[in-house]
Amino acid sequence: MDYAAESLKLHYQWKGKIEVTARAAVDSKEALSLAYTPGVAQPCLEIQKDINKSYELTRRWNTVAVVTDGTAVLGLGDIGPEAGMPVMEGKCVLFKAFGDVDAIPLCVRSKDVDEIVNTIALLAGSFGGINLEDIAAPRCFEIERKLKQRCDIPVFHDDQHGTAVVVLAALTNALRVVGKKIEDVKMVSSGAGAAGIAIMKLLMACGLKHVIMCDKQGAIYDGMEGLTPAQAEMAKVTNPEKRRGSLAEMLVDADVFLGVSAPNLVTPEMIKTMAPNPILFPMANPVPEILPDLARQAGAAVVGTGRSDFPNQINNVLAFPGIFRGALDVRAADINDEMKIAAAKAIAGIVSDEELNADYILPAAFDPRVKDAVAAAVAQAARDSGVARI
Amino acid sequence: MDYAAESLKLHYQWKGKIEVTARAAVDSKEALSLAYTPGVAQPCLEIQKDINKSYELTRRWNTVAVVTDGTAVLGLGDIGPEAGMPVMEGKCVLFKAFGDVDAIPLCVRSKDVDEIVNTIALLAGSFGGINLEDIAAPRCFEIERKLKQRCDIPVFHDDQHGTAVVVLAALTNALRVVGKKIEDVKMVSSGAGAAGIAIMKLLMACGLKHVIMCDKQGAIYDGMEGLTPAQAEMAKVTNPEKRRGSLAEMLVDADVFLGVSAPNLVTPEMIKTMAPNPILFPMANPVPEILPDLARQAGAAVVGTGRSDFPNQINNVLAFPGIFRGALDVRAADINDEMKIAAAKAIAGIVSDEELNADYILPAAFDPRVKDAVAAAVAQAARDSGVARI
Repeated sequence: MDYAAESLKLHYQWKGKIEVTARAAVDSKEALSLAYTPGVAQPCLEIQKDINKSYELTRRWNTVAVVTDGTAVLGLGDIGPEAGMPVMEGKCVLFKAFGDVDAIPLCVRSKDVDEIVNTIALLAGSFGGINLEDIAAPRCFEIERKLKQRCDIPVFHDDQHGTAVVVLAALTNALRVVGKKIEDVKMVSSGAGAAGIAIMKLLMACGLKHVIMCDKQGAIYDGMEGLTPAQAEMAKVTNPEKRRGSLAEMLVDADVFLGVSAPNLVTPEMIKTMAPNPILFPMANPVPEILPDLARQAGAAVVGTGRSDFPNQINNVLAFPGIFRGALDVRAADINDEMKIAAAKAIAGIVSDEELNADYILPAAFDPRVKDAVAAAVAQAARDSGVARI
Repeated sequence: MDYAAESLKLHYQWKGKIEVTARAAVDSKEALSLAYTPGVAQPCLEIQKDINKSYELTRRWNTVAVVTDGTAVLGLGDIGPEAGMPVMEGKCVLFKAFGDVDAIPLCVRSKDVDEIVNTIALLAGSFGGINLEDIAAPRCFEIERKLKQRCDIPVFHDDQHGTAVVVLAALTNALRVVGKKIEDVKMVSSGAGAAGIAIMKLLMACGLKHVIMCDKQGAIYDGMEGLTPAQAEMAKVTNPEKRRGSLAEMLVDADVFLGVSAPNLVTPEMIKTMAPNPILFPMANPVPEILPDLARQAGAAVVGTGRSDFPNQINNVLAFPGIFRGALDVRAADINDEMKIAAAKAIAGIVSDEELNADYILPAAFDPRVKDAVAAAVAQAARDSGVARI
């Protein structure tokens, strides 16, 4: 199917992929007096007395803003805020379909960190959470950090943390397949951008020790010139021997490859130099760093990509709906590492020992068990880590 | 019925009076590929090429933000942004029920004009229009003025302009009942706040000439001390004789009374001094400046209030849904006086000569003819005045 042409046609027919619908009737004078004036004054006064009642008397408890500045939309780059909206609306559809969350798409006409932060922070009373989307690095780091400081609701940059959660789930189960432990494996990335860094941070919080991240210049190391602040921070906690060299050189004896970079950067020859039973997650989209068939022929034990037409799709939709569902359910003040790790474990745990194999390390995006399992685990982790408010 | 208690109970049951629903399915791999990646890239690119396509490929064409800072919510005053949300959600329900408009409630945690303006202006690419609501004067004037300058979509403060439209409709038909012309009548207000000023401005744009506005100190006149900038502006174009004195003194020989002030400020004795067949719109809520029965007994020919339990309810719901429907239908860049006047005429015109009487000058809020008539008239006025973009 020509997805581009067909999708465009459908978008003209849909005329918007979401809409706002009423949960209260206003079909009689009496109904109007209850949903609106004069009756509505009473719930207003209750919230004035106790601001937390806004979670019970309005839709805030179930509402998430999906926010972009349009600077890193899909692989299209900086296409502008309005042009990012079809993706934001699509995300809102996924939030509803997979998480029963009411999500509202907002595009911000600014590329200034403080302006974006201020805009969203001032609206935080309208929502139960904020999902940042398709905002370019390094701005996305600062926006997320500052918003987390200013907001009393969870702020989550899905491109970073949603991806990290699903990669952690994928790695957990890939390691089950090959019989290795996360503490023991050597992992090398191609790509040291927002997603790559978020992934490595979360994996290291789960015990991963031996990490080298590569960008176009090769391995990054502490003291290297030209690093972004986020990369410099990662360089301090990875590559302790300060090895220098190409991706190909770093891959020798590595157990796991993570690709968040560009098409076709990994060759079969490179895979053959890796440790026995290597795991590869070439996630560049739409064309991965190496195609799964090629990787398997060269000896890869497990391969996961971002694509739905290959086995083991590493798809954020496995994570963000259940993560926000769980966070909203306990009115969490934050989505912290404990909650992300719990989400990853829940996703991985859905695949039983009997089901698990090299071509089935993750549940399908449509597996109905995913949302409830993730939401329950995230809610429990929020309680255990002290950020749940109910 | 105890509306307060019953409404509160219902609000706890509703858990929010609106929700976001999906118009596109994501129930299969293929559907997901069309509503989301990879297919969604194509509509994004179309909007990047031509930003106006955001009105065809996303829900923008039908979406209005309902924005408050929570400083003048109903008659409750400054109760805070979150506490205003039950009203905003109610407004969104009315937008949908009476205008087929998707409305999104946003409360802003700021009382700073420029901060509020910047927050909303930066989000304008997400919406087809902005409805300001329950923002205290004089801040509401400046916020509206600055937003209109910065936004390429209509900005409408319903408390001012929606009310003005319905009062114009009510006056038009009340004058039909008593056989007077707008050019000839003397009109006196009690109240010179945001709504009173917006009403008088619109009526004067329609031919009203003889106007005196009173506040608590009595008649306002050019050069009077203590006027707000908006009042000072009105003082220049009203009360040309610079009369000074109380509301009671000003009402002598007046044809029309407009009340946007406080309960029980008008007495039967005052009505008896007015011109023959006086028209009274005592709109203070919930207790009007004089109760309709009392006014009629004292000689009032026509009485309209804000209440649904008396005849002739002057209710904004007659105006704003159709106004925005019409503005959105032609992608209007503004909601200007021509469009407001067209809306008022359309509302008034629904009441036929046969139907018209002193107790029936306005269609009921639920009259199914209202929306389409208003929308069509507003759309035509937008075209005629050059603000329609399709």
